[in-house]
Amino acid sequence: MNNFYPPILQKLIKALSSLPGIGEKSANRLALFLISKVSLCELLGDLLKELPYKVKLCQICRNFSEEHLCAICKDENRDPSKICIVESPWNLSQIEGVGIYRGYYYVLHYLLAPREGFGPQELGLEGLIRLIENRPIKEVVLALSPTLAGEATSSYIAKVLENYPIKITKLACGVPMGMELQYADTLTLKRAFLGREVLKGTTR
Amino acid sequence: MNNFYPPILQKLIKALSSLPGIGEKSANRLALFLISKVSLCELLGDLLKELPYKVKLCQICRNFSEEHLCAICKDENRDPSKICIVESPWNLSQIEGVGIYRGYYYVLHYLLAPREGFGPQELGLEGLIRLIENRPIKEVVLALSPTLAGEATSSYIAKVLENYPIKITKLACGVPMGMELQYADTLTLKRAFLGREVLKGTTR
Repeated sequence: MNNFYPPILQKLIKALSSLPGIGEKSANRLALFLISKVSLCELLGDLLKELPYKVKLCQICRNFSEEHLCAICKDENRDPSKICIVESPWNLSQIEGVGIYRGYYYVLHYLLAPREGFGPQELGLEGLIRLIENRPIKEVVLALSPTLAGEATSSYIAKVLENYPIKITKLACGVPMGMELQYADTLTLKRAFLGREVLKGTTR
Repeated sequence: MNNFYPPILQKLIKALSSLPGIGEKSANRLALFLISKVSLCELLGDLLKELPYKVKLCQICRNFSEEHLCAICKDENRDPSKICIVESPWNLSQIEGVGIYRGYYYVLHYLLAPREGFGPQELGLEGLIRLIENRPIKEVVLALSPTLAGEATSSYIAKVLENYPIKITKLACGVPMGMELQYADTLTLKRAFLGREVLKGTTR
């Protein structure tokens, strides 16, 4: 369909089509829109070329960061007795946006999905265990999506941590089962956070 | 929501959100997807930075081209007696894809929309008139969308060209192939009826 475009336009459409959620027609529309947007093209071009090199993982919590430590791990005014385990920096941002949690985080980047090759190794729990062994941690909050993979991962982590003298909690299922966390609204997320279940430990 | 991302990620999400059809959540998803795609980021970055400088308008038909003349205007094996008027290079590509038209094109880039500031000047018809006056043109095909703006533009161009000894045609408007008649709107059905094809018999 695009064989009649100049080569650079064909290449751009092909590259845009490889992005998630962008089909050939959307890619076409985006590319044609961009032709006349000189400064937006410059900006996007620069950002994209820098992106993979600038964004690193925080050496403590594996959140995205441009430095060795992320803004949250560098913040000494947080509650050092709590760690919240999230799948992604996106989920971390959402929880920060709710504004009621002031502890630290640990970002998995994967959920258990053995069929797709994501086993316990990929979760990278060594860093988490190092934190638990070296800090005055009292509570680990499992804030994973209540999907099959999220639940399996929560159970697995709860099991790995069962012999540590810490409370392990999980987001309340105010979030409907099957919904991915990034689509939850703030209120639902807040309810889920406040009503987190105790999986291990005596009191809330 | 994204205040907890590293600055480059926030900037990229903001820039992506300014693209048509891309909201904040899609931008978020795209940006996170791209972080680990080094070569795709490089490719897209390079293409975007080149795009506005490489893509020009063909000096004859105003189709997109990386050279002074587009591939179609450089093709001497086309029928020089026909010009097809299209709104965009995208529409041109679609018609080329059909594979039954072998004449040349003229790309408007705009339709008449006086309220949005697109009047007759923006259509750039001087180039079209120059072609009609200097080439052995016998037919001008108006291939604009049958929308309010498209119809108004077709009527305007037909009027501008009324004193030239050429045939002026317009794409047939009717029920789309494969559509069940009960879903066709009244206006479409009316046009389909008025423009009905003669299958047998001499006159309408």
